[in-house]
Amino acid sequence: MSNYRPPLRDIRFVLEHIGGLEGLSALPGFEHVEADDVYGALDEAGRFFSEVVAPTNRIGDENGITWNADGSVTVPDEMTAAYRQYVDAGWGAVKGDMEYGGHGFPAVMATAIQEMLTSANMAFSLCPMLTSSAVEALEHHGSDELKAVYLEKLNTGEWAGTMALTEPEAGSDVGALRAKAWQEDDGSWRVQGTKIFITWGEHEMAENIIHFVLARAPEAPPGTKGISLFLVPKYLVNDDGSLGERNDVECVGVEHKVGIHASPTAVMAYGEQQGSIAYLVGDVNAGMRCMFTMMNDARLHVGLEGLGLSERAYQLALGYALERKQGRAIGAPKGHASPIIEHPDVRRMLMTMKANVEAMRSLIFDAVAAGDLRNHGEDERARILGSNRMALLTPVAKAWATDLGVEMTSLGVQIHGGMGFVEEAGAAQHWRDSRIAPIYEGTNGIQAIDLVLRKLPLDEGRVVTGYLDEMDETATQLAESTDGLSAMAGPLREAVGGLRATTEWLLDGTDPSDALAGATPYLRQFGVVAGGYYLAKSALIAKRLLAEDGDDSWLQAKIDTAVFYAHQILPQAAGAAPAVTAGADQLFAVDTEMLGQ
Amino acid sequence: MSNYRPPLRDIRFVLEHIGGLEGLSALPGFEHVEADDVYGALDEAGRFFSEVVAPTNRIGDENGITWNADGSVTVPDEMTAAYRQYVDAGWGAVKGDMEYGGHGFPAVMATAIQEMLTSANMAFSLCPMLTSSAVEALEHHGSDELKAVYLEKLNTGEWAGTMALTEPEAGSDVGALRAKAWQEDDGSWRVQGTKIFITWGEHEMAENIIHFVLARAPEAPPGTKGISLFLVPKYLVNDDGSLGERNDVECVGVEHKVGIHASPTAVMAYGEQQGSIAYLVGDVNAGMRCMFTMMNDARLHVGLEGLGLSERAYQLALGYALERKQGRAIGAPKGHASPIIEHPDVRRMLMTMKANVEAMRSLIFDAVAAGDLRNHGEDERARILGSNRMALLTPVAKAWATDLGVEMTSLGVQIHGGMGFVEEAGAAQHWRDSRIAPIYEGTNGIQAIDLVLRKLPLDEGRVVTGYLDEMDETATQLAESTDGLSAMAGPLREAVGGLRATTEWLLDGTDPSDALAGATPYLRQFGVVAGGYYLAKSALIAKRLLAEDGDDSWLQAKIDTAVFYAHQILPQAAGAAPAVTAGADQLFAVDTEMLGQ
Repeated sequence: MSNYRPPLRDIRFVLEHIGGLEGLSALPGFEHVEADDVYGALDEAGRFFSEVVAPTNRIGDENGITWNADGSVTVPDEMTAAYRQYVDAGWGAVKGDMEYGGHGFPAVMATAIQEMLTSANMAFSLCPMLTSSAVEALEHHGSDELKAVYLEKLNTGEWAGTMALTEPEAGSDVGALRAKAWQEDDGSWRVQGTKIFITWGEHEMAENIIHFVLARAPEAPPGTKGISLFLVPKYLVNDDGSLGERNDVECVGVEHKVGIHASPTAVMAYGEQQGSIAYLVGDVNAGMRCMFTMMNDARLHVGLEGLGLSERAYQLALGYALERKQGRAIGAPKGHASPIIEHPDVRRMLMTMKANVEAMRSLIFDAVAAGDLRNHGEDERARILGSNRMALLTPVAKAWATDLGVEMTSLGVQIHGGMGFVEEAGAAQHWRDSRIAPIYEGTNGIQAIDLVLRKLPLDEGRVVTGYLDEMDETATQLAESTDGLSAMAGPLREAVGGLRATTEWLLDGTDPSDALAGATPYLRQFGVVAGGYYLAKSALIAKRLLAEDGDDSWLQAKIDTAVFYAHQILPQAAGAAPAVTAGADQLFAVDTEMLGQ
Repeated sequence: MSNYRPPLRDIRFVLEHIGGLEGLSALPGFEHVEADDVYGALDEAGRFFSEVVAPTNRIGDENGITWNADGSVTVPDEMTAAYRQYVDAGWGAVKGDMEYGGHGFPAVMATAIQEMLTSANMAFSLCPMLTSSAVEALEHHGSDELKAVYLEKLNTGEWAGTMALTEPEAGSDVGALRAKAWQEDDGSWRVQGTKIFITWGEHEMAENIIHFVLARAPEAPPGTKGISLFLVPKYLVNDDGSLGERNDVECVGVEHKVGIHASPTAVMAYGEQQGSIAYLVGDVNAGMRCMFTMMNDARLHVGLEGLGLSERAYQLALGYALERKQGRAIGAPKGHASPIIEHPDVRRMLMTMKANVEAMRSLIFDAVAAGDLRNHGEDERARILGSNRMALLTPVAKAWATDLGVEMTSLGVQIHGGMGFVEEAGAAQHWRDSRIAPIYEGTNGIQAIDLVLRKLPLDEGRVVTGYLDEMDETATQLAESTDGLSAMAGPLREAVGGLRATTEWLLDGTDPSDALAGATPYLRQFGVVAGGYYLAKSALIAKRLLAEDGDDSWLQAKIDTAVFYAHQILPQAAGAAPAVTAGADQLFAVDTEMLGQ
């Protein structure tokens, strides 16, 4: 039994009207894609995640994983069984290259699947998520030989992938890593070094684990320019594709974490004995580029964790609010206790969750669809447009959505009252699980710096300005709307105006210290305004569909949700703006030594 | 060893300049109070909590408590040992009535002690906290006979207290409770019923536990008008004051919680056998009044949990940010990794924590000092002023500070990066512990309703208006300041103006549904503005002291912290305002059945 209901209608709405699935399916390479087939497959996927994966969530949290003295890691049987079914059903292979066992569908479809998987069991979802990032790295940077051996098995999920970047002294500062690589006389590579925080670094859920390890080749320059990427299989692969000897790769421990208990976060010792047998991916010293390929894919998926957990927490809280009776709501008959959903404050929390969930889904799917355009656009201009849009939105998708993930799951706890603090109710798990997402794959502070220093200047600022223009165009359409939607035009226009002002300030040769100081509030402002934009756009679309198709209370709810956001959440963006442009001096005014007095 | 450093200088500053300790010590009943003695005692208390209690925090979290099949609860030995020392040192008796073993000091001094205790070990602190609430109930509503038997032992902490209000169907809606009370032929009372979520409901840390149980006497009217308060001792007390037989009171289980693992949250069965022997406190059917006496004391203490955990989390994060090196800060020599505290984004998180900690401390201590005025004011007018101010600020202290507690401890996690998610680092525990505070002693939604429906109308709105006038007066003083402080006048005046507008809207005969709909954003707006007011006022005081005493970098840091808050946090208040006045319709526009589609 599961209490997760896949939000298929909203996923379809966003794929159709924000992600532009029809348009994507007309692009070169997607000739075999029919939108109706996609929706049919998503229905099927939703059933699978709801019925097979979602029930493993509490089991995984309660039992966690176990690190054994022989270096193996035990995962709950229920999860291993569900993983086998996941692989057999082919859900991991949706977007993969058709030459290598994939189905060649748009990434935005894979994202819809990954969202549902994350809602069903976030700890579990990290295994396919990292495999997907490994696939990206191999597809874009791997030699044909490596692809031939590894890509199909990774696409199907028979083998799992990892990203082995972090070391004790090299977290956010990847360039400080010390793991080393060298070539033997026969030209083959070896890798040696200890990596920490390796998600799904060791387990037996998949037959093999393919580690993607960053290390320094001999005489590599210091910093990020001297990093190379290596593929390090747990089991070596024989010429016939069967599994051979165990490589020199050992899990020497796992972390005791606040959440995602069922996901092994491993300390990995590579090559402690004689060096791990490794295969170079991409060129020597070009590892950072490969890493960013993996990272960008992973960052969007981490944003999806904020969305997926918020969705699940919302459903759980909604169910509780419908059942739990306390107090009498205004207008209810005397002497009767009302379901707490009838109390305005509980309703506010639920509407806040619902509105933010829909806003996050739109922004993330838009970013991923832009990635499909980057890869499949008909001409270079289209591909560059897609690439730039994806680049701009990736840090927002990652940081805004994961901060919201913590906040929305916290509202889920609050709606449960005292039961929210009791593990048995399940609300607390979503909140605990959510807390890692603002940290890994580049902390949200790093995302904000990326947005401000690297993404705003793209194409001399035209990428962000074009996006702002889109938002203003939506505000204009709202203003021209003859119905109730016109009242949303003012708040949206004002919010976009505020974002344009801080954007221009950041682009206008601002001192880098001041820009860094304002990065985090700017990203928040950006996310809140973008959320309002997507919901407003969705409301306009819903209005049009209502005019075409007549009464549909789902579409009306979509509009009402946008109205709530425009008037009650969107104004928060203005509250963040003054901190964007306040400069660094105020942050450093208190002497470091006085901070602790 | 402990990493908690009691913030004695800021506590003293707030006691002196916000709490008005000198003025309080001149009031009737406080003739024996010398401010210098208070500060001396706080230094001593700080040493005790830092050295004796703080080291038990991780032990308590890791080991938790154990419920045994015989109904007993085992607490870690280290905590029991620390509790004995706490009792022996007399820290629990500070504000108690001198006739009954107390030291008769102002409540605001006890609050300073309770803050440090909470920072040291929140789970532990709940035991004295509930005892303090029990003392309040007994002092104000108990008969002389009951006081003679129970009050001294509760004051010293030799016996602990509980508040047994909640039942499975009666949480926020206390009036729905079903526990029953009756009189035997000899006139003695019996109580029977099951209560849940009873903090420190069972343990052997204290010799006896005195339960304060709400129940319905025979023929009681329905709802809150039919509730009576009973004192139910775990062990009956013999005529000579020694402990006698065990009462019919049993702990039948404890909750498995997300945080405060070392605090037993008990399911208590009262009177399952033949009825618990009980003693009526106050009049029959007057239990709600007694409960509010306990609750109001407890609510301020819960607000203190937001403060105490934020302070401890801040210190931990600051220590980490000073040690941990990643990346090169702007201006640092090439090739060197900088402590992360040099990065603007980390600095922003630390300054946000520091500023909010100081703001919370001021507001809570002000509220408690108003309570001292209520109890000890020289004339009725002073006592009413104190009572009203305390009443106004209590829901803000409880809800704003506990919401901030979750947010600030979450920043503490974030500053730790990957280690923040690992339990070993300790940051996660503060975050987990913080999550209960917005829920218990009246959820924060209930606090917001209390503020809007009961507190704003006090004295026909003059209480809140007077408080707003105080804030405006501070803005005027800032504007008249000839130095750098004048730039804070604008933001403060604007924020107070915004709060005045929403306050007037709420007072102005607004439909109750609309007022309820806006209650939570209003409370947030109120807290953010009040925080800015206290910091601005503190900055003016610090400026004056600097002019008198010359160079003092601590006072300068106080000013710089206020400047940061005024320009970067205070503007968030305006972002909350539109949601206050948006009305209930937007919250209920989406049909209940469509929320789950």
